[in-house]
Amino acid sequence: MEAPEHPMEAVPSQPARPPDALARCHALLREPMRAVEESLEETIHSTVQLIPEVSRHLIGSGGKRIRPVLLLLCAKASGGDERRGVGLAVATELFHSATLLHDDVVDRGHLRRGVTAAPQVYGNSASVLVGDFLLSRAFSLVVGHGDLRLLDELSRVLTAMAEGEVLQLIRSGRLTVSLPDYVQIISGKTAGLFSWACRAGTSLGTVDVAGAAAEFGRELGMAFQIADDILDYAAPSADSGKDVANDLLQGKTTLPLLLACETDPSLLGLVESVAAAGPDQASCRPIVERVLASGAIDSARQEAQRHADRAVARLSDFPDGPLRKCLAELADFVVRRAD
Amino acid sequence: MEAPEHPMEAVPSQPARPPDALARCHALLREPMRAVEESLEETIHSTVQLIPEVSRHLIGSGGKRIRPVLLLLCAKASGGDERRGVGLAVATELFHSATLLHDDVVDRGHLRRGVTAAPQVYGNSASVLVGDFLLSRAFSLVVGHGDLRLLDELSRVLTAMAEGEVLQLIRSGRLTVSLPDYVQIISGKTAGLFSWACRAGTSLGTVDVAGAAAEFGRELGMAFQIADDILDYAAPSADSGKDVANDLLQGKTTLPLLLACETDPSLLGLVESVAAAGPDQASCRPIVERVLASGAIDSARQEAQRHADRAVARLSDFPDGPLRKCLAELADFVVRRAD
Repeated sequence: MEAPEHPMEAVPSQPARPPDALARCHALLREPMRAVEESLEETIHSTVQLIPEVSRHLIGSGGKRIRPVLLLLCAKASGGDERRGVGLAVATELFHSATLLHDDVVDRGHLRRGVTAAPQVYGNSASVLVGDFLLSRAFSLVVGHGDLRLLDELSRVLTAMAEGEVLQLIRSGRLTVSLPDYVQIISGKTAGLFSWACRAGTSLGTVDVAGAAAEFGRELGMAFQIADDILDYAAPSADSGKDVANDLLQGKTTLPLLLACETDPSLLGLVESVAAAGPDQASCRPIVERVLASGAIDSARQEAQRHADRAVARLSDFPDGPLRKCLAELADFVVRRAD
Repeated sequence: MEAPEHPMEAVPSQPARPPDALARCHALLREPMRAVEESLEETIHSTVQLIPEVSRHLIGSGGKRIRPVLLLLCAKASGGDERRGVGLAVATELFHSATLLHDDVVDRGHLRRGVTAAPQVYGNSASVLVGDFLLSRAFSLVVGHGDLRLLDELSRVLTAMAEGEVLQLIRSGRLTVSLPDYVQIISGKTAGLFSWACRAGTSLGTVDVAGAAAEFGRELGMAFQIADDILDYAAPSADSGKDVANDLLQGKTTLPLLLACETDPSLLGLVESVAAAGPDQASCRPIVERVLASGAIDSARQEAQRHADRAVARLSDFPDGPLRKCLAELADFVVRRAD
């Protein structure tokens, strides 16, 4: 029997057709992205059968592979051979997946990429330990690349990721968070790895755009996470692959709620009483409705757009051409998916 | 106010005086071990206050620091400047600590080093995420050392650790495990990091004893873990700092039970029925009694001693002198603590 071309992508809950900008990026990277999928499958192999099983549950359920795409595009856009970036690209997806596994233990989330989150299927223990396995495999791939400076930057990114997650955890009980806290949380948990992926890609290039790539990735990551936080309020579950208002149920305050409380201060009292009683579907519903009615979603979209615009501005250091154009389109794509 | 000399060691649950062989090692390494303690305190610092708090709960509750001691002793015994090994030594303690935090989430253990395990105090989430923080800090220290080969070996060790932990998890439901599984589990979760610590120490040396050091560490780690597993059956809780038969309660089959089932096959039926009903203190007690009566503890001690003997044999490649003697005494110490 012939092996399927993309063995890890054939899951029914995945939307039938990826949105255009990302699809165009994938089309430009057909060969290396095929190598990424093959390498992902190889990398999660273990004689301990539960490890590939749990890994495949998450990694095989699709996902946009946006971090590998960014890394390979930045490699190519800076004049590098993107095929040399496959190992690093796989590593970014593995770091991201490990974080999701650990984050799902934390959050008792229900849906992840449209399927039941791993801890509900395999237990907390398996999620923690398989997450650790993926971390070690990702680490191994980056070490194999042999660039100590990239490794040093990566270790700082991972530290900030953990700090962002812990800060989010501390704040989650109270359902209130300051804007600086929110920025530190999403900067740590999302923007850092986006930034590293872009910077790592350009390390393979022939023109020195490392600084611009790191900034592009950081701004794109901020836009991406804000859009994700908007989707939690504004998207039907089937589209986002996650429960609606899942963040709120878990006590996480994100930008829409933050902005809604600014324009509607009386909302703060409701949020505090819901947080004190322990949020559930019924008690969260009026909060969601008031957030939607407050205009905060539009304001949050504008904030995401500002980050995307800053990302695009940093691309001026890149050589002009269809690859730079693709990177710019990606920045628009991550905001527009929250429309 | 003057800072205490060893700020992380002043916890009442710590035994008043460490056993002699380890104490002699500590005495030989007074300066670098002081630097290790200081660096541990610095490394767990974060603006996110919960991180040093959870870290200190575990790392500050003492522990034998056997991995840092091994690393520094091996550096010195192979002619190296042990002060250059402080960062690597700290990393070994951090990797170990991260594993304990993640392992305690998994195991719902009650006592760790005589104090309540972190997840019972701070919650599973904090333990997972602070464990991730410690992993990233440890990773950073090893990267800072700049030896890609050590990094590559480390990533393999971490992979085997995760595989060992997952294998233990899979087997824990059934309370039965084969001897090869047991060997893979303890080899992965303990012996690998011991081996790496010894090997990393000698990378600072002037004589090439890397292979011997790696083997010494591996055998010592096996002896250490078997002794630990014996203590779970044979030691009063106050001595070991852990609940007695904690492993059994968590469904973990270790060497004493494995050997007892060999000499007393009828025990297997009892173990299976206890496992099926879900083990508790009352149902575990007759198993513990039959393990103790079976002579399995003595057989397990002999197995630990065989590993310790093999460890000592590998020391013949090291330069003769008081440091080699100290390493040999450590091998005896790890077995004798289970007497």
